[in-house]
Amino acid sequence: MTENSSPQMWIYDTTLRDGMQCEGLSVSIEDKLRIARSLDRLGIPFIEGGWPGANPKDVQFFLHLQEEPLQNSEIVAFCSTRRPKTEASTEPMLQAILGAGTRWVTIFGKSWDLHVIESLKTTLVENLAMIQDTIEYLRIQGRRIVYDAEHWFDGYKHNPDYALQTLEVAITAGAEWLVLCDTNGGSLPHEVSQIVSSVVSHVSSLTNQEPWTNDKSRFPIPQIGIHTHNDSDTAVANALAAVMAGARMVQGTINGYGERCGNANLCSIIPNLQLKLGYKCIENSQLSELTQTSRFISEVVNLAPDEHAPFVGRSAFAHKGGIHVSAVERNPLTYEHIQPEQIGNCRRIVISEHSGVSNVLAKARSFGIELDKQNPKTAQILQRLKTLESEGYQFEAAEASFELLMRSALGSRQQFFEIKGFQVHCDLVEGKEKSHALATVKVAVNGKDIIEAAEGNGPVGALDAALRKALVNFYPQIALFELTEYKVRILDGHAGSSAKTRVLVESRSGQQRWTTVGVSTNILEASYHAVVEGLEYGLFLHFCAIPVLNVSSS
Amino acid sequence: MTENSSPQMWIYDTTLRDGMQCEGLSVSIEDKLRIARSLDRLGIPFIEGGWPGANPKDVQFFLHLQEEPLQNSEIVAFCSTRRPKTEASTEPMLQAILGAGTRWVTIFGKSWDLHVIESLKTTLVENLAMIQDTIEYLRIQGRRIVYDAEHWFDGYKHNPDYALQTLEVAITAGAEWLVLCDTNGGSLPHEVSQIVSSVVSHVSSLTNQEPWTNDKSRFPIPQIGIHTHNDSDTAVANALAAVMAGARMVQGTINGYGERCGNANLCSIIPNLQLKLGYKCIENSQLSELTQTSRFISEVVNLAPDEHAPFVGRSAFAHKGGIHVSAVERNPLTYEHIQPEQIGNCRRIVISEHSGVSNVLAKARSFGIELDKQNPKTAQILQRLKTLESEGYQFEAAEASFELLMRSALGSRQQFFEIKGFQVHCDLVEGKEKSHALATVKVAVNGKDIIEAAEGNGPVGALDAALRKALVNFYPQIALFELTEYKVRILDGHAGSSAKTRVLVESRSGQQRWTTVGVSTNILEASYHAVVEGLEYGLFLHFCAIPVLNVSSS
Repeated sequence: MTENSSPQMWIYDTTLRDGMQCEGLSVSIEDKLRIARSLDRLGIPFIEGGWPGANPKDVQFFLHLQEEPLQNSEIVAFCSTRRPKTEASTEPMLQAILGAGTRWVTIFGKSWDLHVIESLKTTLVENLAMIQDTIEYLRIQGRRIVYDAEHWFDGYKHNPDYALQTLEVAITAGAEWLVLCDTNGGSLPHEVSQIVSSVVSHVSSLTNQEPWTNDKSRFPIPQIGIHTHNDSDTAVANALAAVMAGARMVQGTINGYGERCGNANLCSIIPNLQLKLGYKCIENSQLSELTQTSRFISEVVNLAPDEHAPFVGRSAFAHKGGIHVSAVERNPLTYEHIQPEQIGNCRRIVISEHSGVSNVLAKARSFGIELDKQNPKTAQILQRLKTLESEGYQFEAAEASFELLMRSALGSRQQFFEIKGFQVHCDLVEGKEKSHALATVKVAVNGKDIIEAAEGNGPVGALDAALRKALVNFYPQIALFELTEYKVRILDGHAGSSAKTRVLVESRSGQQRWTTVGVSTNILEASYHAVVEGLEYGLFLHFCAIPVLNVSSS
Repeated sequence: MTENSSPQMWIYDTTLRDGMQCEGLSVSIEDKLRIARSLDRLGIPFIEGGWPGANPKDVQFFLHLQEEPLQNSEIVAFCSTRRPKTEASTEPMLQAILGAGTRWVTIFGKSWDLHVIESLKTTLVENLAMIQDTIEYLRIQGRRIVYDAEHWFDGYKHNPDYALQTLEVAITAGAEWLVLCDTNGGSLPHEVSQIVSSVVSHVSSLTNQEPWTNDKSRFPIPQIGIHTHNDSDTAVANALAAVMAGARMVQGTINGYGERCGNANLCSIIPNLQLKLGYKCIENSQLSELTQTSRFISEVVNLAPDEHAPFVGRSAFAHKGGIHVSAVERNPLTYEHIQPEQIGNCRRIVISEHSGVSNVLAKARSFGIELDKQNPKTAQILQRLKTLESEGYQFEAAEASFELLMRSALGSRQQFFEIKGFQVHCDLVEGKEKSHALATVKVAVNGKDIIEAAEGNGPVGALDAALRKALVNFYPQIALFELTEYKVRILDGHAGSSAKTRVLVESRSGQQRWTTVGVSTNILEASYHAVVEGLEYGLFLHFCAIPVLNVSSS
C-alpha cells in the first residue's frame, strides 16, 4: 500500500484527558507538556490536552502551550455542554475553555435519554438545547468543534430516535466531527459495526441540506469518529469495526491508559489501520517512532510498560526455541504478522547472543562513536549490556549511563573522580515531627581523598549534597548542575521490601539534560550510583564536548 | 437469556500448554495440577494439559491425573502429527501421547504450504499423509481427536485449496473438531469472520457424506473451533467473530497468558459469550467464580494480576468522581456494562481527589461502617482526606490506610502499639561490593518501651525486620504477615532528590491482602509509615474481625 494512495484517518489522542482517569496515574504539568510534545513529534493530528473548566492544572497546561505551540498537532480543549437552565455565554466552564486559546474544542453531551433524566435531572428537550447552544456559542467565538456523543451506543440501543436528534442539533449548530462514544465499554464489534453504519448513512442523508457543505475551510460534511473503552476486551476491534463502517476519526490513548479497563490503545490501532487496513494515520517515518513513544510515555507516567503489549511490547516479537528462531530468520513472514521495524520495535531472539548488535551499533552512532560488527569490543559491550539488563538495569531512558558504559569498554571514559564509599544515617526521634537525614561520602580526586558530610530533606538529597560538596572545589561547574528528576521503580514488587530497585536520575546543566541509572536491592545504593554517574556525565559533557571517536575494527 | 435455551459453546483451555510459552512464566508439576483443578471447578469442558512427547514434566503431570482424575473437565494431551517419512505406529511422540491416558488428544498439523516446504522441508502430499495417518492411528487406539490447524488463516489466504485439503483429510481420518488457529496473531476480526464462514459451509457440505454422521457417541459433524493470539490486540474479538460465523469451540488461556502478546483471554471470552451473546459456556454459579479463578492462577504462576483487566481486574468496576458515584449507586446500568457480581468481581468506589461525600459514604459502607451525610464526622473525614491528598497521599490503592483514617476519626481505631522513632544506617564501605543496612526502632506496647535492631538487604527491609522483632512477642500472628509488594512514586520528580515520595506497601496474611501508604520527603520515613500501618491493619483484621459499626448522625 503506497502512502499517497491511502485514505486519511484522523487520530485523536486523549491520553492527557481520558487517559488520566486511569487508576494509579497522576502527572505534573511538566509531564503533560513532555507527553504532548512527544505526541506532536509522532504526528498525531489532534491531541486533547485536558478539561480547563474542571481542572485548574489544565488551565496552566494550555497557557504554557500558548507560549510554546506544538509543531504538527492541533491541541484540543475538552468541556461538557452548558448545564441545564443556564446561558452558554455566562457558563464559567465555557469561559475557561475559550481561555485555553485552542482553535479546536471538544464538547461532550448526553445521547442516552436515561442519563439526561437520571444524571442531569432535566428534560430531553433541554438537553438538545444545551448541545445546540453550547456549540453555537463556541462557533461564534471562532472555535471549530468536535462533538463527543457520550454513551452513544447504549443511548442508541434504548432510544435511537432521541440519540439521532442529539446528533442532528450538533450538526445544525456547526460541529465538524460527531464522535460516537462507547462510554461504558460494553459494546461488541458487530454492534458497533451496525450502529456506526446506520449513523453514517443517516448523517450523510441529512448533511446534503446543510449550509456548511460548501465551506471549504471545514471538513466537507460532519464526519463520524469513534471513541471506545476496553471493558469487553474489544476496544481496538470496536474502533476498527467503526472505521470499516465509515468512521474517519479514532479516539484513543497511548498504551490504552484510561479509567477501569482503559481506552482504545492507539499503539495497536495506528499500526492496524496503517499497515493492515491501508489507511494513512501518520508518516511512515513517524510510525517507526511508535514503540519509542509508547515507552517514553510509560516512563513519564511511571507505570511499568506492558511487556506483552501488542506491537510495542518488549515480548511482541520475541522468539523462543531453535526451529522457530531459524525459521523466522530465514523467512520472518512465517512467524511475524508485521515487520517489527515498521513500528520501531525489534525482533528479539530469546537466548541468542546476536540479538541487539544492531541496537548497540545504532546507539554508538548516536553518541558519535563509529563501531562495527566485526570489532570485538562490540561483542563485549553487548555482553556487558546483557549482564546488566539481567540484573535489572535498563538503558532505554538512561542513555548517559549507557554512553559511559560504552566509553568504558572502549577505553575512552575519563575518570574525573573515584568513589570510595558512603554512609547514610536517618532517624525520626521521639517527640519530633520530622525525620533527619545525614550523608557522608568519600571520594578521591587526583589521588587525594576527600571526606564530606551533608544533611538533606531525605537520604538521597543528603547524598547528593555531600557529593557536590566533595567535588565542587575541583570542578566548580558542578554548582551549575541540577538534579531535575528522580524516579524509582521496584523491579520485583513481589519480593516485598527486599525487591530490587531501579533509580533513574535526570540532571541538567543549562539546556543540556541527561539521565543516569542505578540498580540495587538497597534503594539508597541504587540512588547513590545514579547520582554519581549523573555528576560524572555532566563533567564529561563539560570537558570532553562530545568528540567523535572513530574506533576501527582492526 | 435463560440458561436452558442457550446454545452450548465448548471452551477449551490451553493455559497449561500454550499459556506456558509466556515469557517469564514457568511452573512446577504441582502448580500445573493446582491450575488444572481450579479450571475443573470452573467447569471448563476441555483442559489441554501439555505435550507429553516434547516435555518430560508433562508426562508426570498426566500420570498424576490418571491417579486422581478431574471431576468435570476432559483433560487433553497435545502433540504434532508424525514427522515426515515415519510410521505413526512407531513415532515416539505418539507413544508418549497414548501413555498420557487421556480420552481426548489434540493433534496439530500444518495448513500453510509455505510452512510445509520451509519448516517441515517435505512435500504437500506427505503433509496430508502425516495428518491422516496420525489421526487414524490414534482413532484406532481409541482416542477422540481435536485437530488444530496451525497457521490456518495465513495458510488459507495464501493457498485456500491446499488449506482446505488438510481439513478434509483430518475429517476423513476421524477428527471430531477442526480448530482454526491464527498462530501468528495477525488476523483482524473481519478476515476471521469471512474465512470461518467459508470453512463452516465447506465442511458442512462435505460431512453430509461422511460415515461418522450417524455415530451418536460423537459430535454430530466435525465442528469448527477457533484459536487466536493477541498480536493485533484483537484476539478476543477474533474469537467472537469466529463464533458468530459458526465456530462452536473457543480455545484460549486464563488471563490471556501466552507467547509474545498472549493467547485469547478466556476471562473475557466466557463472560462475553455467556452474558452478551447468549451462549452457555459454564454454569452461572461457576461463572461467578471467574474472578477468583483468574486471581488464583495469577498467584500460582506468580505474575502480578493486571489490575485493568476487563471483567476480572481490580479496576474493572472502579468508579471515581462524585456525580458518577451517586449515579452508579442509583442505577448501575448507567455506568456498568454488566453486573460485576455475575463474574464474582465487585464495584469499587475509588477514593481520590475528585471524591465527594458520596464516595466517602460508599466506602464506609464497604468497610461495614454506617455513616450518613448529616453526620458531622463525614465532613471531618472528607476534610482530612483532602488535606492528606494535597500533601501527596493517595488512597485509591491504599484502602487499609483509608479505613484506619476513618476509624480514627470515628474513635474506633484500636491502638495496638505506639511508634516512638526509628534510626537507619546504611553504608557502602571502601573495598566492599555490597552495601549494608541496619535499622533500629522504638515502639511501646501496653506502656512498655521496646527497642530492637535488625539488618536487611536494604534500609526498608531492615526497618520491616526490626519492627517485627519488636512486636512479635506481643502479637505472634505478625509472623504470618508477609510484605508482598512495595511501590515507590516520586510525587514531584522535578524537585529532584528533595521531592516528596509516596510509598505503597501491600501485605498479606493467608488469603487476605491489604495496602497501606506513607508520604514524606524522606523515602525511608514514607516507607516506615506504610510498613507500620501495614502491621497495624493486619492486627486490626486479626483482632477486630471487621465489626459492623453503626455510627448515628446524632
